[in-house]
Amino acid sequence: MLTIESISPKLLKAEYAVRGRITIRAQELERQGRKITYCNIGNPHTFNQKPLSYVREVLSLLEFPQLLEKDLGDLFHSDSISRAKHILKQMPEGLGAYSESSGVSFVREAVAKFINNRDGISSNPDRIILTDGASKAAQTVLTAIIKNDKDGIMLPIPQYPMYSATMTLLGGHSIGYYLDEENHWQLNEHALHTSYANAVKQGINPLAITVINPGNPTGAVLSYENIKMIIYFARKHNLAILADEVYQENIYSKSSSFHSFAKVMDDMKIKDVSLFSFHSMSKGFYGECGHRSGYLEVRNVSDEMFAQLVKLQSINLCANLVGQMATYLMVTPPHPGDASYELYIHERTSILNDLKEKSLIIGEALNKIDGIKVNIPEGAMYAFVNITLPEYRLNTADIAPDEAYCLALLEKTGICVVPGSGFGQHPGTLHFRTTFLPPKEAILELVQQLENFHREYTSN
Amino acid sequence: MLTIESISPKLLKAEYAVRGRITIRAQELERQGRKITYCNIGNPHTFNQKPLSYVREVLSLLEFPQLLEKDLGDLFHSDSISRAKHILKQMPEGLGAYSESSGVSFVREAVAKFINNRDGISSNPDRIILTDGASKAAQTVLTAIIKNDKDGIMLPIPQYPMYSATMTLLGGHSIGYYLDEENHWQLNEHALHTSYANAVKQGINPLAITVINPGNPTGAVLSYENIKMIIYFARKHNLAILADEVYQENIYSKSSSFHSFAKVMDDMKIKDVSLFSFHSMSKGFYGECGHRSGYLEVRNVSDEMFAQLVKLQSINLCANLVGQMATYLMVTPPHPGDASYELYIHERTSILNDLKEKSLIIGEALNKIDGIKVNIPEGAMYAFVNITLPEYRLNTADIAPDEAYCLALLEKTGICVVPGSGFGQHPGTLHFRTTFLPPKEAILELVQQLENFHREYTSN
Repeated sequence: MLTIESISPKLLKAEYAVRGRITIRAQELERQGRKITYCNIGNPHTFNQKPLSYVREVLSLLEFPQLLEKDLGDLFHSDSISRAKHILKQMPEGLGAYSESSGVSFVREAVAKFINNRDGISSNPDRIILTDGASKAAQTVLTAIIKNDKDGIMLPIPQYPMYSATMTLLGGHSIGYYLDEENHWQLNEHALHTSYANAVKQGINPLAITVINPGNPTGAVLSYENIKMIIYFARKHNLAILADEVYQENIYSKSSSFHSFAKVMDDMKIKDVSLFSFHSMSKGFYGECGHRSGYLEVRNVSDEMFAQLVKLQSINLCANLVGQMATYLMVTPPHPGDASYELYIHERTSILNDLKEKSLIIGEALNKIDGIKVNIPEGAMYAFVNITLPEYRLNTADIAPDEAYCLALLEKTGICVVPGSGFGQHPGTLHFRTTFLPPKEAILELVQQLENFHREYTSN
Repeated sequence: MLTIESISPKLLKAEYAVRGRITIRAQELERQGRKITYCNIGNPHTFNQKPLSYVREVLSLLEFPQLLEKDLGDLFHSDSISRAKHILKQMPEGLGAYSESSGVSFVREAVAKFINNRDGISSNPDRIILTDGASKAAQTVLTAIIKNDKDGIMLPIPQYPMYSATMTLLGGHSIGYYLDEENHWQLNEHALHTSYANAVKQGINPLAITVINPGNPTGAVLSYENIKMIIYFARKHNLAILADEVYQENIYSKSSSFHSFAKVMDDMKIKDVSLFSFHSMSKGFYGECGHRSGYLEVRNVSDEMFAQLVKLQSINLCANLVGQMATYLMVTPPHPGDASYELYIHERTSILNDLKEKSLIIGEALNKIDGIKVNIPEGAMYAFVNITLPEYRLNTADIAPDEAYCLALLEKTGICVVPGSGFGQHPGTLHFRTTFLPPKEAILELVQQLENFHREYTSN
């Protein structure tokens, strides 16, 4: 009979803090009847963020195409109906069939066009793979290139722990590089060099650098110049780039804008740095996490290399078809003049404005608390909050001091956040990650509870 | 820039014949305008098999819940409407949110009840994980238990190549055991012992045995006694069992019935053999491959071991929610008295009767061809067809003789089947796998084309 001894040491070692110890405890408390506010995960629909109507209208029709033969009155917008018909004309087998391994071809073509429209650069539909969310896209690339425990990937500190967990599972090496908290969490050339040189000194072979922009957990948006620096760095050291750009629509600060790695690289006329970029419908203003919808665009690799990625995808057959269609809808929103255009703009604007307001509210309120400071989030859905604890709170047995803090916060207030140690943090600093997804009023209330808790936790 | 040299040797070595060389060539020909009949993959909806209406009605409503507030006339059956409402009451966040890592709890409860109803045995919802198709379930288990290249899993020959490809990716060892072609592809105790003993002699550590019942690619249904023998064998050698039972509804022969490993093990009062069983909505009479819907039930493992499987799932967040709901609908079909019950029964019966007829048609017609013989499929969707080739067709350079045969068949007729070497076969025998999913008339036409081709290919 299998027991814990039967488990691969790689899996035993893998950690995914976003759903780790604190979250498991929160679920226990919830089952006992406690009200829990899950600020641990970017899961917008659980906070009553509504899906975009045009997306759901079309998906609803695709699930039950007989509707298209009926008189639907005003149940659906007319463009949703014509879109569903258009999709099914190209894909008469519908949502119930496996697609090509890399995904339905007209969806890949639409993604390429979306990239072309966004960046003014060309994109090849035959270098796109549709995936079950962006996580799957990243895992596909890492599975393909990690050969042994000497192979390493440069990962930010703090990072999104899906990356480190995947590296642990694959038996590769995570090479951390520090983000610069004092400089809005931008990447720092010196820190990159130090991290790279240390890895090489230890006999590690760095293959690629992962960059998350806008940042998770930092909420930072990288400047154009910062991205240029990263591309030069990657080229100098013959590194591929994994660009996690799932929060590209989530930009709140007036002084920030999103620049894709593909666009910056094209501007630099660099064609010899391999680039893997990920996007997803789980974030942005869609928040369609449950649909597991995403894509991977690959640039500057050989045909044979790309064919191996497709083969890997084929072993899993293909991404779920509803998710593939959701991606199609994400990259082809309604146009001016379409019946659902006004509603689309209204829904999109409300969600993004709300997130923008909340990023400021949480940032400013947190910065007023003694012993707490935070870079006000410029993008994404998270704040990575710096906490100062008194000496006697640092000597925690069997548990990291930030984890002890988050656990106490949970037990006291029902607020579930993730300790900074789950993402990585500079030695001597402590953090937690929180989303700013709860409704505005709830956020102010949360910050108040946090302030009371923090005062109590840090007083003698 | 990344090239083929950047690819992990494990991925380079992995092969998934169902979407391998022959299929890739078929897609090329199709793009050139040739009509291709894809008998390489069990993808029923591409052959115009219709989805079950009740499933799609409910999924359609779940995608666009505003419909539930409107007057829907007779667009939907009344029980579909009440089901959608019932689901959304338990899951107000809808399809757009991540669920618990192991899947939505009421779905896991329904799966446990389905197993209980099917087998009359108890099943624990907290030992069930909802997955993106059964492939993902199998990969989760294998990822969890393979530690190094000395760890092996016993796999049937012929097998479904997702298993061997996954083992190659994980760096584990595939220990083949021969199925008994002369005895309706049942498992043979002697063959199991030989395979096990050879592996141990080579220093391999067998951890588990995979059994596919009903069989892919064999179309065989295992007898109760055969399953008992396998369980005794597993127990004797301290092996876990991976029971791939995705074709459990696809039983055509009057003399066969489906027995789950869980039920037989329960009858035997054995509680110390770990069992992982997989089911999916991709097969059966649903054929919902594109929804990537499936589950894993785990029996007789420690709590700590199971928790590691859930952690692994958490790194991928969760299975897609539409697929989770599809699984819910699979395990809770309409009841007598429900508005959609009659239609459900009609749709189910038509599909299963059609498959049953076609299993006989293809089996009998193939057996009439000189140089071709086949065990008439008793279940699943495949025939694993034995071909005899003349000496001069066996000396094929750079390509296996069965692959050369399938390639020539494709070029000549447009019929795409998968060579036996992609599944494994007894040395000295040659096969191909074909589905029997095309419509009846098309199947007779296909067999005729195959006969003409075979005669020509084997004549001097």
